[in-house]
Amino acid sequence: MPTVLVILPEGFEELEAIAPIDVLRRAGCEVTLAALGPGIHVTGRNAITLHADLPLDSLPAETAAPLFDCLLLPGGPGVAHLRASPAVRTLVERHHAAGKLLAAICAAPTVLHDAGLLTGRRYTAHPSVANELTAILADERVVRDGQLLTSRGAGTALDFGLALVTALVSPVKAGEIAASIRA
Amino acid sequence: MPTVLVILPEGFEELEAIAPIDVLRRAGCEVTLAALGPGIHVTGRNAITLHADLPLDSLPAETAAPLFDCLLLPGGPGVAHLRASPAVRTLVERHHAAGKLLAAICAAPTVLHDAGLLTGRRYTAHPSVANELTAILADERVVRDGQLLTSRGAGTALDFGLALVTALVSPVKAGEIAASIRA
Repeated sequence: MPTVLVILPEGFEELEAIAPIDVLRRAGCEVTLAALGPGIHVTGRNAITLHADLPLDSLPAETAAPLFDCLLLPGGPGVAHLRASPAVRTLVERHHAAGKLLAAICAAPTVLHDAGLLTGRRYTAHPSVANELTAILADERVVRDGQLLTSRGAGTALDFGLALVTALVSPVKAGEIAASIRA
Repeated sequence: MPTVLVILPEGFEELEAIAPIDVLRRAGCEVTLAALGPGIHVTGRNAITLHADLPLDSLPAETAAPLFDCLLLPGGPGVAHLRASPAVRTLVERHHAAGKLLAAICAAPTVLHDAGLLTGRRYTAHPSVANELTAILADERVVRDGQLLTSRGAGTALDFGLALVTALVSPVKAGEIAASIRA
């Protein structure tokens, strides 16, 4: 089954992580929750604390290390930590170079911007970062452009998750899950 | 600010807990996450582990103990544990008798049914429990009837959370949050 790495910094937006993880695991994807920063616990912007699957720095760092089919970046104030992390930048660049899916929601598309990946691409993001990302498609809840999948914010996190299931598994599976959760 | 007690059994549906907790905390509510069962960690149906705020059995059990403004019950397979818990039944009955808000989503309205609170009331729930709850209003995403607030499933968890903000804080605040999360 497809593999997904979710990177969780302190201050991540909980719903933007949980909604996609929930539906991706329902779809049978192997989703790994990696804590950025020390320790295995990560506390989100709404003071909800998750026990991650592993610390990000426990993943093999060498350039020959296996990649995931998708890298998933939630938003929230914690995006500042994602942007400041050389390890996250390296993961983004390696996954991009290998043609893997890069998924970012809310303020997290700025991480893709920092890596120079948004130039000339169609994407959306939260309006709070519109001063940095001028080409936000504000009317769209989720935007897919090649290997980039972006979404607006916590209010579109479930659409974002279902779009990931569509991309990584199948539109049929996404439809089955949407029906079963009564979306 | 209004107080909310969320009861988390093993096997709870993560999105059905996180979405309302997220928006209730954004609205300024004091939300307490109580772990049913031993320990402070609770793992949901999709293998996401939360660090709760306290174990449910650390709350004062005596009948004079303070109540919360709202009792919130997420769905998922863990509802079986909610239904089997005398402590949960007592909390439901005490909050109902005091006129507090009782909120249940997905399969969790069966807990209200077990306490005899659904007779003659308007409510919804997940169709998987339709054999027990015959009067499910399947076309409505959230149903408010007096002090009962019910919803369909993970796909309506954000609507459920925003309806709780409307009920406990104000419709204006719910609208502000919906706009800020780009719902």
